[in-house]
Amino acid sequence: MARRKGQGRKRPARVKVAIVGGAALGWGPTIVTDLALNEDLAGQIVLHDIDPKPLSLMRRYGRAVCRHPDAGGRFELTTTQDRRKALRDADFVVVTISVGGLAMMAHDLRIPRKYGIVQSVGDTVGPGGLFRALRNVPVFKRIAEDILRCCPNAWVLSYTNPCTMLARTLIRHGVKAIGCCHEVFGAKSLIAQLANQTLGRKDLTRDDVDAVVTGINHCTVFTHATVAGRDALDMVRRHMKQPGVVRVYGPGEQLQAQGLFARDQVKLELLRRYGALGAAGDRHLAEFFPGYLTPETHEGNRWGVVVTTIDERIQWKKDDLAKIRARLRDAKAFARQPLKRSGEEAGDMMACLVGQRTMRTNVNRPNVGQIPNLPTDAVVETNAWLTFDRIDPICSGPLPDGLLPWYLRHVMNQESTIEAALKGDRDLAFQALLNDPLVSDRDDAERMFKEMLRVQADYLPEFKPRRKTRRPRRDPSKTAAVDGALACGLAYG
Amino acid sequence: MARRKGQGRKRPARVKVAIVGGAALGWGPTIVTDLALNEDLAGQIVLHDIDPKPLSLMRRYGRAVCRHPDAGGRFELTTTQDRRKALRDADFVVVTISVGGLAMMAHDLRIPRKYGIVQSVGDTVGPGGLFRALRNVPVFKRIAEDILRCCPNAWVLSYTNPCTMLARTLIRHGVKAIGCCHEVFGAKSLIAQLANQTLGRKDLTRDDVDAVVTGINHCTVFTHATVAGRDALDMVRRHMKQPGVVRVYGPGEQLQAQGLFARDQVKLELLRRYGALGAAGDRHLAEFFPGYLTPETHEGNRWGVVVTTIDERIQWKKDDLAKIRARLRDAKAFARQPLKRSGEEAGDMMACLVGQRTMRTNVNRPNVGQIPNLPTDAVVETNAWLTFDRIDPICSGPLPDGLLPWYLRHVMNQESTIEAALKGDRDLAFQALLNDPLVSDRDDAERMFKEMLRVQADYLPEFKPRRKTRRPRRDPSKTAAVDGALACGLAYG
Amino acid sequence: MARRKGQGRKRPARVKVAIVGGAALGWGPTIVTDLALNEDLAGQIVLHDIDPKPLSLMRRYGRAVCRHPDAGGRFELTTTQDRRKALRDADFVVVTISVGGLAMMAHDLRIPRKYGIVQSVGDTVGPGGLFRALRNVPVFKRIAEDILRCCPNAWVLSYTNPCTMLARTLIRHGVKAIGCCHEVFGAKSLIAQLANQTLGRKDLTRDDVDAVVTGINHCTVFTHATVAGRDALDMVRRHMKQPGVVRVYGPGEQLQAQGLFARDQVKLELLRRYGALGAAGDRHLAEFFPGYLTPETHEGNRWGVVVTTIDERIQWKKDDLAKIRARLRDAKAFARQPLKRSGEEAGDMMACLVGQRTMRTNVNRPNVGQIPNLPTDAVVETNAWLTFDRIDPICSGPLPDGLLPWYLRHVMNQESTIEAALKGDRDLAFQALLNDPLVSDRDDAERMFKEMLRVQADYLPEFKPRRKTRRPRRDPSKTAAVDGALACGLAYG
Amino acid sequence: MARRKGQGRKRPARVKVAIVGGAALGWGPTIVTDLALNEDLAGQIVLHDIDPKPLSLMRRYGRAVCRHPDAGGRFELTTTQDRRKALRDADFVVVTISVGGLAMMAHDLRIPRKYGIVQSVGDTVGPGGLFRALRNVPVFKRIAEDILRCCPNAWVLSYTNPCTMLARTLIRHGVKAIGCCHEVFGAKSLIAQLANQTLGRKDLTRDDVDAVVTGINHCTVFTHATVAGRDALDMVRRHMKQPGVVRVYGPGEQLQAQGLFARDQVKLELLRRYGALGAAGDRHLAEFFPGYLTPETHEGNRWGVVVTTIDERIQWKKDDLAKIRARLRDAKAFARQPLKRSGEEAGDMMACLVGQRTMRTNVNRPNVGQIPNLPTDAVVETNAWLTFDRIDPICSGPLPDGLLPWYLRHVMNQESTIEAALKGDRDLAFQALLNDPLVSDRDDAERMFKEMLRVQADYLPEFKPRRKTRRPRRDPSKTAAVDGALACGLAYG
Repeated sequence: MARRKGQGRKRPARVKVAIVGGAALGWGPTIVTDLALNEDLAGQIVLHDIDPKPLSLMRRYGRAVCRHPDAGGRFELTTTQDRRKALRDADFVVVTISVGGLAMMAHDLRIPRKYGIVQSVGDTVGPGGLFRALRNVPVFKRIAEDILRCCPNAWVLSYTNPCTMLARTLIRHGVKAIGCCHEVFGAKSLIAQLANQTLGRKDLTRDDVDAVVTGINHCTVFTHATVAGRDALDMVRRHMKQPGVVRVYGPGEQLQAQGLFARDQVKLELLRRYGALGAAGDRHLAEFFPGYLTPETHEGNRWGVVVTTIDERIQWKKDDLAKIRARLRDAKAFARQPLKRSGEEAGDMMACLVGQRTMRTNVNRPNVGQIPNLPTDAVVETNAWLTFDRIDPICSGPLPDGLLPWYLRHVMNQESTIEAALKGDRDLAFQALLNDPLVSDRDDAERMFKEMLRVQADYLPEFKPRRKTRRPRRDPSKTAAVDGALACGLAYG
Repeated sequence: MARRKGQGRKRPARVKVAIVGGAALGWGPTIVTDLALNEDLAGQIVLHDIDPKPLSLMRRYGRAVCRHPDAGGRFELTTTQDRRKALRDADFVVVTISVGGLAMMAHDLRIPRKYGIVQSVGDTVGPGGLFRALRNVPVFKRIAEDILRCCPNAWVLSYTNPCTMLARTLIRHGVKAIGCCHEVFGAKSLIAQLANQTLGRKDLTRDDVDAVVTGINHCTVFTHATVAGRDALDMVRRHMKQPGVVRVYGPGEQLQAQGLFARDQVKLELLRRYGALGAAGDRHLAEFFPGYLTPETHEGNRWGVVVTTIDERIQWKKDDLAKIRARLRDAKAFARQPLKRSGEEAGDMMACLVGQRTMRTNVNRPNVGQIPNLPTDAVVETNAWLTFDRIDPICSGPLPDGLLPWYLRHVMNQESTIEAALKGDRDLAFQALLNDPLVSDRDDAERMFKEMLRVQADYLPEFKPRRKTRRPRRDPSKTAAVDGALACGLAYG
Repeated sequence: MARRKGQGRKRPARVKVAIVGGAALGWGPTIVTDLALNEDLAGQIVLHDIDPKPLSLMRRYGRAVCRHPDAGGRFELTTTQDRRKALRDADFVVVTISVGGLAMMAHDLRIPRKYGIVQSVGDTVGPGGLFRALRNVPVFKRIAEDILRCCPNAWVLSYTNPCTMLARTLIRHGVKAIGCCHEVFGAKSLIAQLANQTLGRKDLTRDDVDAVVTGINHCTVFTHATVAGRDALDMVRRHMKQPGVVRVYGPGEQLQAQGLFARDQVKLELLRRYGALGAAGDRHLAEFFPGYLTPETHEGNRWGVVVTTIDERIQWKKDDLAKIRARLRDAKAFARQPLKRSGEEAGDMMACLVGQRTMRTNVNRPNVGQIPNLPTDAVVETNAWLTFDRIDPICSGPLPDGLLPWYLRHVMNQESTIEAALKGDRDLAFQALLNDPLVSDRDDAERMFKEMLRVQADYLPEFKPRRKTRRPRRDPSKTAAVDGALACGLAYG
Repeated sequence: MARRKGQGRKRPARVKVAIVGGAALGWGPTIVTDLALNEDLAGQIVLHDIDPKPLSLMRRYGRAVCRHPDAGGRFELTTTQDRRKALRDADFVVVTISVGGLAMMAHDLRIPRKYGIVQSVGDTVGPGGLFRALRNVPVFKRIAEDILRCCPNAWVLSYTNPCTMLARTLIRHGVKAIGCCHEVFGAKSLIAQLANQTLGRKDLTRDDVDAVVTGINHCTVFTHATVAGRDALDMVRRHMKQPGVVRVYGPGEQLQAQGLFARDQVKLELLRRYGALGAAGDRHLAEFFPGYLTPETHEGNRWGVVVTTIDERIQWKKDDLAKIRARLRDAKAFARQPLKRSGEEAGDMMACLVGQRTMRTNVNRPNVGQIPNLPTDAVVETNAWLTFDRIDPICSGPLPDGLLPWYLRHVMNQESTIEAALKGDRDLAFQALLNDPLVSDRDDAERMFKEMLRVQADYLPEFKPRRKTRRPRRDPSKTAAVDGALACGLAYG
C-alpha cells in the first residue's frame, strides 16, 4: 500500500478490503458496489461470514458486481468463514455484523413496549440500544484483538449500530476505527431541497451544503450551515413560519403527512429550542430525548415520528434478497443496467487514507478537541479532514449550552454501557438504563431489565447468573445460531 | 470587627448583624435566638422588613429573646423598613425573604399539578423551583447592589430557596455569600440513630458522624461517612438487608410508615444504585430525578415521599405565630423557661468568620475545585473550613460517575435560570424548564409555562409581554402586596 | 459580497480590501500583487497610511501592478490617510503597521544586548517581543474599535509581529481576525527539498508536504508530516544520521555553513529531543528557548543561528525601495516582465471566505480545541479549513509532553503582556519579562526594563511615570513621528 | 486498629509503626521520640534497615527513648533487617531511606558545579534532584509492592527527598502515602516572629499563623495568611519597606547577614513579584527558578542563599551520632533530662488517622481539586483535614497567574522524571534535565548527564548501557554498599 501523490493519481491504489459480516444484506452489496466503481482503488475484497449459505450467495453476487462493465474489473472477490484469514494483511476492514440479528432486536422492541416504552428504531439508545450494545461490544472486542493480530495498521470502517459504542470499543482496544453513518447526508439533502424550492433552483444537492456537524451519532445537529451562499439555518427558520410546516399531529395523521420537513418535526423543534437543526433522521433523534415517543405513538404520534416494526425490517430483507436473486438469475440484464454508486462513502474514505485524494466529511472518531465541552476520547461525530493514513477532526466548537447536558448524559451512559458489557457488570448496565431519557419508572425498569437479560442470555455470555460457576465464555459471533427470522439465515446481519 | 485570637476567646466579638426579611416567621426567631445565646458574639441585630406590622411583632419578640436570662443581654435589637439603613456597616447580613410568599408558591404547585407534575416541596427545582428563582433572582441582585454599597465586606448568609441559585446570584454580583441549609444535619442524625440502634448505644448524635458531603443543595449525598469508628455507609447497607427496610409503598401506606429510614426510601435507592447515600430529605431529593413523584403521589406514593401542601404551610405559620404571641403575652413564664439553641449554625459561622474560633461544616459556596467534575463557579455543597474572614472548601473529590450527568444537568439548568431571570429571557427560561427531569411533555410544558408566567406576572417584571413598550421595572421586594395567606402579613416570607 | 458556489467559479467576487499600513514596503507590494493576480477576486483596494509621501509612492506602484497585463485590471486602487474612510464597508482588512518602526526596534535589540541578551530577530518574544507588543497592542485595540464601527463583519488579516499577541488583541476586542505568517511554508519547502534529494526527484514542492502544524506563531512544530507517501519526519531522522548534518558550529563557521538543514540545527534539535520538527525559521525558534542564543552569538554561534541586525533591515528596505522606484521609472519594461504571485496566501484566504473556493492551510486563530492542552482562546497556529465566512481549525491533538511546559509558559506570558499593555501595568509587564526564557538575572532584568521603558516612552503612552497627573493618551499610530531610519519615511512599517 | 471516638479519647490507640530506613540519623530518633511522647498512641515500633551496625545502635537508643519517664512506656521497639517482616500488618509506615546516601549526593552537587550549576541543597530539583529521583523511584516502587503485599491499608509517611516524586511513586503504585515536610513550619514561625516584633508581643508562635499553603513541596507559597487577626502578608509588605530588609548582598556579606528575613530574600522577592510569600527555606525555593543561584554563589551570593556542602552534611551526621552515643553512655543523665517533642507531626497525623482526634495541617497529596489549575493527580502541598482513615485536602484555589507556568513546568518534569526512572528511559530523563530552570546550555547538559549516569551507574540499574544484554536488575536498596562517608555506615540514610 503506497501513496500515489505527485503521480497524477492515474493508477488506482491496490488494497485488500475485508468485510466482516460480509453476507449481511444491508451493507454488503452496497459497499462492494461502491468499491467496484471507485476509480482510485483496486485489489481484493474478502467477504467473511459465519454462515456458508448466505456467504455463497453474496460471493456470486459480489463477483457479478466486480465484473460488471461499469466497474472495470479492478477488484477480485473471495469469501471465507475464517475471520483471521479474511483479516490477514488487510488494508481496510469493514464491519457490518449484528450479534443476535433481528431475532434479538425483536425482544429489544417488544419487551420495553410492555412497560410503555416505545422506540422508533431501538438500535442506538434506550433499552434496545443498551442491549444491542451489550450483545455486540464483547464481540467487537474480540474482532479488535483479531485485527491487532492480523492487520494492526488497517483502518476499520464500522457500520454496525450502536455506531458510537462499537467504534469506541474498537478504538479502546487499539484499532484505528471510524464509525460510519449516512444520516447526516439525508439532513443535508433536505436543506438542498429547501434551497432549491426557496431559490427557485433545481441543481443544488447535498454536496452544495456546507455544515458544521456536531454531536454523537444519530443525535447530530448542524450549528451552522450554508447553501448557495446563504445561511441555511435562517432559511429553515423562515420556512418554519409558513403555515403547516410546524405541525401537531393527531391520531392517524402522520401517515398522510406531506411536504418538506413534514417528517422532520423533531429536527425543527431542536432548531426552535436550542438553535441547532437536527441532522439525523427524526426516528433516531426522537429516541435521545423524553417526550417525543409515547405509548400511543404507533398508531400515529403527535410529532410524526415513524416507528419501524420488526415485521417491516423482515420484509425489507426479503425484498433485498429477492432483488439480488433476480439479478443473479438474469446476469445479462444485470450487466446491461448501469451500476450506480450508493452515495455512501466507504470507498472514498479508503481512497483518501491510501493517499489517492483528500476529503472533508463527517465521521465518528474520538474527541481530541473537536467538541471541547465533551469528554476527551468520547466518540463524537463531526467533520474531519481525511488524508494519507490520517483522519484529523475539524473543530466544531462547544455544543450549545441547552443541548450540552443531554449530550453529556448520553456520552457518560455510553461509556458506562461499554464498561458494563466488557465486565458483565449488571449494576452498571442497570445504572445506564436508569439514566436513559426513555426510562422513568424505576421499578418497571428493574423488571424490564431482568426480563431482557433472561431472554437474551444466549447472546450475553458475560452476564451469566451470579454466584454460579462460570462456564467458559463462548464468542457468540462464532457460534450463534442462524437468525431464525429469515430463510437465508444471515447470522451476523 | 477585630479578631480575638490568642486572647483565650474570653471576650465576645462585637458585630452588627442585619436580617433582611427579618419579620419572616420561619427563620427570624431562630436566628435571633441562636445569636442571643452565642457566647462568642455581641453587638447589634437589625431586623429589616417591608411591612411594619409583623416587624413590630418581631421587634417585641426579638428583644424579649435578647434579654432572656440565658442570653445575657449581649445583643441589642432594632428594626427598620429601610434596607440600606439596616445594611449600613453590617458585619453580617442574613437573608430570609421570599418574593411572592405562599400566595405565589400556591401557583408553583397548583399549575404543574394540572399537567400531571407533582412536587413534594416545589421550592428548589422543577417548575416551582424555576419560578421561585425567576421571582427572587432579580431581587437578590438588587440586595447584592445594596450590600456592595453599604457593607461591601460583610459576609452574607442566604437562607432563601432555591438556595443554590440565590447564593450564586449574590456571589455573581460580588457579594461574599454563603448558602445555608440544615438538610445535611438531618441525614447525619439519621445515621447517628442507626448507629445507636446497631451498636446498642444511646449517646451518638449528628456531631459524631463524620461525612464527605457533596452535590448541590437539597441534592446532597454522602460518598463516605464514619460513625463511632465504623463505616457508616456499610452500616446502612447492612440495615437495608433487614426485612421491611427497603419498601414498596402501596396507596395510603406511606402515612402509617414507621421505623428508621421508613421515610428515606429515596436516600436508600441512591445508595443502592450509585453507592452514595442521599443526604437531604427525601421530599427534596425526589424532585431532582424522574420517577419518584407521580400524579398519584398525593394519595400515597410508592416511594413514601410526603407531599407538603400549601394549606399545611399556612397552618405551620399560624402555629408559629400563635406560639410567639403566647410567649409575649406571658413574659415572665417565657423568661423562666430555658432558651435553647436551634441546631442551626448561623451564629457559629459568624463566630468563625470574625476569628473567635474555627469550624468545619457543610456550606454552599462556588466550586473552586472541591468537586472537580462540576463546572468552576457553580455553587456546590461540601464541607469547608471556616476561619478568620475565609471559607476554604474541603475537597470532596469527583462525583460518582452514575450521578454525574444528573448533577451536570441541574447545575447547567441553574445557570440558565439565573441568566434567564436577570435578562427576562423567556426562551432560556423555557429551555431550563424543558431540561428539568420532572418535565417530559413538550406541548404541555409550553402551556404550563405560559400560564405560570401569566398568573405570576406582578412578581416577574423582567418578563413583560414582548414587543410592547417596556414599563420601567419595579422592584417587587419593595412594592409587593402583603401575602394574603396570613393575617399577620409577612410580605417577604 | 455573495458566494458563487454552484456557478463554476467563473466570475470573480467583488470585494473591498483595506490595507492599514499600506505604505509599508515589506508587505504592501506583495499583497497588492497577489490580489491583482487572484482570479477569484475583483473590486477595490484602499491603502491607508499616516504619512503621505510613501503612500503616494505606493499608490503609483500599486496602480501599475493592478493594470499589469497579467493582472487583468480587476482591481481599482486608492489611498487615504483617513483610517475610518479606508475601513468603511471593507470586506477585508489587512494590517501591516508596526508602531515605532525600525527606530524603536533598534532599542529592542541594543539594550538587552548590553545585559547579555542576544535576540536573533527580536520581534516576537524576549525583551524585544515584549516591548514591540507593548507598543502595538494599544494601537491594535484602537484599530479594532474602528473596524467594529466601520466594517464589523470584515475578516482581518494581521501581518504585524508579534503576530500571536496582535491577532489576540484584535479578537479580544470582537474582530474576526487571522494572524498570518509564512514561516511554515519555508519548513515545508525544506522537507520537499529533502524529499527530492532523497528520492532522486525534482518535482516535489511545499504543496506536496502534508503536515500537522501545531504550536504558536514562530514556534510551530510538525508532529506528523508526509511527503510523496512517506513519513517525512522519519526521512529527516535518517538524514540527521548522515555525517555533517547535525553540527556544532565553532566561531565564524556559521557563515560558511552549507547543505540542507545547515541553518536548521534548532529545528533538528527539537526533533531529536521532543519528536517534533521545528516548523519556523531557526532565528525565530531559537528565541523561545534558553541556550540557543548566547552573547557570543553574533560572531558566529554554536547552533548556527543567524542574528539579523538593524543595519541589515535598513538595507533591505532601501533595496526594496530602489526596486520599486526602478520599476516605476521604466513602466513599459515592468509591464513586459511577468508578474508573479509571492507564495503568500492573503488573496487565496479571501477567495475562500467569500465562498469562491475552499482551502486547508495553517492560520493563527483562537484555540477552540485544536490544541486541547493549551488554554481556550489562546491564539495558536494550526491547520484550518477555510470556507464561506468561516475558519474551522483542524485538530492537531495535544502538544508533546516535553514541549508543553514551554508553550504554556509562552501562552501565559502572551496573555499577561496584552493585559499589561492595555492597562499600562508595569508590574505585570515586568513579570512577563522575568518569565521569559531569554531572561535570567533578576536585577539586570529590572535595570533593562526601566531603560527600555524610558527610551520608548513616546510610544508607550499607557506607561506614564507613576503618581503624576496622567496626560490624555495619544494614539501613537496617528501622531508618531516618521521613522527616522529611512529617507522614505514609513511611519507604520 | 479501632477508632476511639465518643470515648473521651482517654485510651491511646494501639498501632504498629514500621520505619523503613529506621537507622537513619536524620529522621529516626526524631520520629521515635515524637511517637513515644504522643499520648494518643501506643503499641509497636519496628525499625528496619539493611545494615546491622547502625540498626543495633538505634535499637538501643530507641528503647531508651521509649522507656524514658516522660514517654510512659507505651511503645515497644524492635528492629529487623527483613523489610517484609517489618511491614507485616503495620498500621503506619514511615520511609526515611535515601538510596546512595551522601556518597552519591556528593556527585549530585560536584558534577553540575563543573558546568556552572550551583545547587544550594540539590535534593529536590535541578540535576541533583533529578538523579536523586532516578536512584530512589525504582526502590520506592519496590517498597510500594511490599507494602501492598504486607499491609495494604497502612498509611505511609514518606520523608525522603525529592518528597513530591517519591510520594507520587508510592501513590501511583496504590499505596496510601503522604509526603511529609517541615519547611512550611519554618515560614510560619518567621511570620510569628515578625508579628511579635511588629505588635510588641512575645507569645505568638507558628500555631497562631493561619495560612493558605499552596504549591509543590519545597516550592510552597502562602497566598493568604493571618496572624493575631491581621493580614500577615500586608505585615510583611510593610516590613519590606524598612531600610535594610530587602537587600542586595555583595561578596562575603551573606555570612554576616542579620535580622528577620535577612536569609529570606527569595521569599520576599516572590511576594514582591507574584504577590505570594515563599513558604519554604530560601535554599529550596532558589533552586526552582533561574537567577538566584550563580557560579559565584558559594563565596557569597547576591540573594544571600546559603549553599550547603557535603562536608557540612557529614559533620552534621557526626554530631548527631556523637550526641546519641553520649546519651547512651550516661543513661541516667538522659532519663533525668526532659524529653521534648520535635515539632514534627508524624505522630499527630497518625493519631488523626486512627480516629483519636482531627487536625488541619499541610501535606503533600495528589491533586483532586485543591489546586484547580495544576494537573489532577500531581502531588501538591496544601492544607488538608485529617480524620479517621481520611485526608481531605482543603482547596487553595488557583495558583497566581505569574507563578503558574513555573509550577506547571516542575509538575510536568516530575511526572517525566518518574516515568523515566521506572522505565530507564534516558531520553525522557534528559528531556526533564533540559526543562529544568537551572539548566541552560544544551551541549553542557548532555555531557553532564552522561557523566552523572556513569558515576552513579551502580545505583541506576534501570539505566544500563544500551544495546547490551540486560543483566537482571538488582534492587539497590537491598545490596547497596555502606555509605563510605560515615564510620557508622548508614546505608539508606
